[in-house]
Amino acid sequence: MSSGVSNSSGTRGASGGDIGGREACVIGSGMIDFGELFEQSTDDMAERAYLNAIEDVDSGISPQEIDAAWFGTLDIAGDASSGAGLAHATGLFEIPVTRVENACATGSTAFRSAVEAIEAGSAEVALVLGVEKMRDSAAGLIESAALDQVWRGRGVTMPAFFGMRATRHMHEFDTTEEQVAKVSVKNHANGAKYPHAHYRFECSVEDVVESPTVTYPLNLYDCCPVTDGAAALLVASEELASEYTDDPIHVAGSGLSTDSLLRSEDESLVGFPATTQAASQAYEQASIGPEHVDVAEVHDCFTITELVTYEDLGFCAKGEGGALIDEGVVELDGEKPVNPSGGLLAKGHPIGASGVAQLAEIYEQLRGEAGSVQVDDPEIGLQHNIGIGRNATGSVSCVNVLERR
Amino acid sequence: MSSGVSNSSGTRGASGGDIGGREACVIGSGMIDFGELFEQSTDDMAERAYLNAIEDVDSGISPQEIDAAWFGTLDIAGDASSGAGLAHATGLFEIPVTRVENACATGSTAFRSAVEAIEAGSAEVALVLGVEKMRDSAAGLIESAALDQVWRGRGVTMPAFFGMRATRHMHEFDTTEEQVAKVSVKNHANGAKYPHAHYRFECSVEDVVESPTVTYPLNLYDCCPVTDGAAALLVASEELASEYTDDPIHVAGSGLSTDSLLRSEDESLVGFPATTQAASQAYEQASIGPEHVDVAEVHDCFTITELVTYEDLGFCAKGEGGALIDEGVVELDGEKPVNPSGGLLAKGHPIGASGVAQLAEIYEQLRGEAGSVQVDDPEIGLQHNIGIGRNATGSVSCVNVLERR
Repeated sequence: MSSGVSNSSGTRGASGGDIGGREACVIGSGMIDFGELFEQSTDDMAERAYLNAIEDVDSGISPQEIDAAWFGTLDIAGDASSGAGLAHATGLFEIPVTRVENACATGSTAFRSAVEAIEAGSAEVALVLGVEKMRDSAAGLIESAALDQVWRGRGVTMPAFFGMRATRHMHEFDTTEEQVAKVSVKNHANGAKYPHAHYRFECSVEDVVESPTVTYPLNLYDCCPVTDGAAALLVASEELASEYTDDPIHVAGSGLSTDSLLRSEDESLVGFPATTQAASQAYEQASIGPEHVDVAEVHDCFTITELVTYEDLGFCAKGEGGALIDEGVVELDGEKPVNPSGGLLAKGHPIGASGVAQLAEIYEQLRGEAGSVQVDDPEIGLQHNIGIGRNATGSVSCVNVLERR
Repeated sequence: MSSGVSNSSGTRGASGGDIGGREACVIGSGMIDFGELFEQSTDDMAERAYLNAIEDVDSGISPQEIDAAWFGTLDIAGDASSGAGLAHATGLFEIPVTRVENACATGSTAFRSAVEAIEAGSAEVALVLGVEKMRDSAAGLIESAALDQVWRGRGVTMPAFFGMRATRHMHEFDTTEEQVAKVSVKNHANGAKYPHAHYRFECSVEDVVESPTVTYPLNLYDCCPVTDGAAALLVASEELASEYTDDPIHVAGSGLSTDSLLRSEDESLVGFPATTQAASQAYEQASIGPEHVDVAEVHDCFTITELVTYEDLGFCAKGEGGALIDEGVVELDGEKPVNPSGGLLAKGHPIGASGVAQLAEIYEQLRGEAGSVQVDDPEIGLQHNIGIGRNATGSVSCVNVLERR
């Protein structure tokens, strides 16, 4: 991979420091099968993901060894706000539980916060759990999507915002509908193999292009589904991690950035500056560049989002996202596989859970435990979300870098 | 102050560690006048509190020197979710902004998270901002108070939950309505002198006892008002803090704990175990006991809450809260002044802002800048919140200890 985009500027302050002297490692992950889980409550989903993470730790772990927890949820279902909701679902009382919300970057930000606490020495073993019950609460979902009445009343829905980004990219760089559609084809091919994915079917470029139009140029298969789900991670200090597993995965870097909520302040519609800034912070902390990333789980709420993100993360130069997918670089057997889990497009996007699930997948990839979607011997994995604030697509971005050493 | 309650047990894990080798200090605080602020948006309130904090820093500070921010809000008004909301209000783009929500402990938990990040080395100077617009959104407020339809439909409102705690305390310890009322008298006397308080009038025990009954034994003046407000803090690493002020205030300890959401699991109605656990963590980190606390801002959503909290924090033995207030210990000129700002009862309780405002007041007290409500030369100050999860009163608690050295 060559990197045509410099990530060495554009952020200030926090990006300059590494995260303390103490490092954090992931020691376990757990997911539930994503889908339309009408029969499961928020508590049910959270508990099952938590127990799966507990059971995933090589040496075994007792709940009493977990000394802090972070809870990522938008609480779209309206029944899980505050850290006490997670404590209730897991039985983890008497310890600090912090609920974090950062739009679609909620899960990844919760992870980042847990890492900071471990690196600060205020926790030794932390649970990070993301959960979202989406299907019961369509009205809540629309509210949470933070598009105000003024925009919604004019038809500017979430797909429309991203559709505008797609048409602009097509205009500026001659990106084609077929190139955009290939993101969906790739991710559905991966998702068909991924056991936890909501949608497990393959589709062709024709299927995507001929699926019902949602907002030009985005069709049904260009859009992620509305999915329920939960995912969990166990994170420990480097010193303790080796007691739990011979193969801990290090948290090498973490970046978080925000952009204006006003689209009138956008310099361009063909990139998400928050992604570039968050990636720059994470790369700098990890002492790597985008060329060192072996596998990535990135935010593909819509196909165009993933294509633009290749560029914002520096996987290719600005405008070359279409070429990158044409060349097969980001395929499961390519040089830099992106979204081996099927991404949000196939796996689903239960908002608070999405970032945690991406990190769980990267954890498994780096440990060589990703089964049917395992990529070839990755050492460095990247996880990425963007989030929507009010009417702003991409106003928040979180990037985490994990590393096998 | 003698402490009749042991705080040395009851927590596990996290309470044992101190928060890293690096310490954090508060270097500035800002508030706006709390009240019914129909003319101000969430953004307006946040911006003003932020600018007041900036202006409060002795040496001056440029926004470019802030390299991370934490945003505490329940977002009751529905217009401020995700960290991007704070970035938008303050213009602090391109830096990590994390939104934290932990029920009524939201502001204090946001502060705690910022401290962890600074102690981890991932931030050098952080903004903590709490804001809540309550008056526009009564329906949202009731939802956020997390009492489900089953309970509300049976008349078990928020005051009713605390009323049951009051009657039980009266039953077990012969606590009187007059003793409970004295909390309101004290806090309104303080609030009358506090420039940012929503309610600035004094009242007598008769006024409280004869005010309209809300839920026996709690009357109108036993309940905090519905208030809009915002507050901000600037926190820096110990090394940098001395560049900003000769009188930084150290964050000596922080505790956070959760309790069951099921009242059927309560062992008792006369205490909040989460408070005892969070206080134990904070005291241990700060290497102090409750007897060392010189001034405190505690959670007085209702009068009974403050009285029980004296006991849970170890300011007196269980059951002796009534005696403590009779003896004048917690008065502004007493041995251990509690809520010199007027507390939530007089100052108001804009949820996301409340904990941050309490910390701002403790900061001013420890610097000797609390003006008309300054207490006598305090060195150690404590801030406390409890929060409600779903139907559970006191299911979350956060305690922070600040120290002048």
